[in-house]
Amino acid sequence: MQATALDRTFHALSDPTRRAMVQRLARGPASVSELAKPLSISLPAVMQHLAVLETSGIVRTEKVGRVRTCSVEPKMLGLAERWIAERRASWERKLDRLADYLDATASENDNDTDSGEAK
Amino acid sequence: MQATALDRTFHALSDPTRRAMVQRLARGPASVSELAKPLSISLPAVMQHLAVLETSGIVRTEKVGRVRTCSVEPKMLGLAERWIAERRASWERKLDRLADYLDATASENDNDTDSGEAK
Repeated sequence: MQATALDRTFHALSDPTRRAMVQRLARGPASVSELAKPLSISLPAVMQHLAVLETSGIVRTEKVGRVRTCSVEPKMLGLAERWIAERRASWERKLDRLADYLDATASENDNDTDSGEAK
Repeated sequence: MQATALDRTFHALSDPTRRAMVQRLARGPASVSELAKPLSISLPAVMQHLAVLETSGIVRTEKVGRVRTCSVEPKMLGLAERWIAERRASWERKLDRLADYLDATASENDNDTDSGEAK
């Protein structure tokens, strides 16, 4: 289930218009028309992008009267961020171990050279 | 240009097979056949996913003789992680300011109540 949640979240973030919408909402909640204003696309297109963001769980919308207010739901962003961070950390640990191994090998070689010179 | 790089990176991460490949490579470099072994898909499908990962810049491959070795290229993962982290941080600052405002309003109300009681 978490796999499909991550599928949807990364898919939602793969579009520049949707990222612009998330960027705007990260500064605070906005109505759909406030969200649409800086974007040079039609309102139906905005609604479609908003639906993708809502399905992914990145954005929550609430309708009061005739105004739909959109806001960021940080949980899914946190999940996606953590997925990437953990893979990066794993890769960096791997690199550190490689560096340690190379250091150890280098100092072994130094010792070999030292003892060679001492003779 | 950065927009399209992020498009490609988030798109690459939106597929569970490609995430499994990144997860494997985060533990260290692997040949294409090592990468394919745990996956229950055909080698051409693996190659297709690998091409998406390579185009996005998340994975780098190097062919020596007949063996193609794949490894993680952490720069693009870092970019994607930072994009999410910055939006989350912006949203959290917004929430903090809201909390401060509510605290301030609450203590103003307390003061009003206090002075009211003092009369």
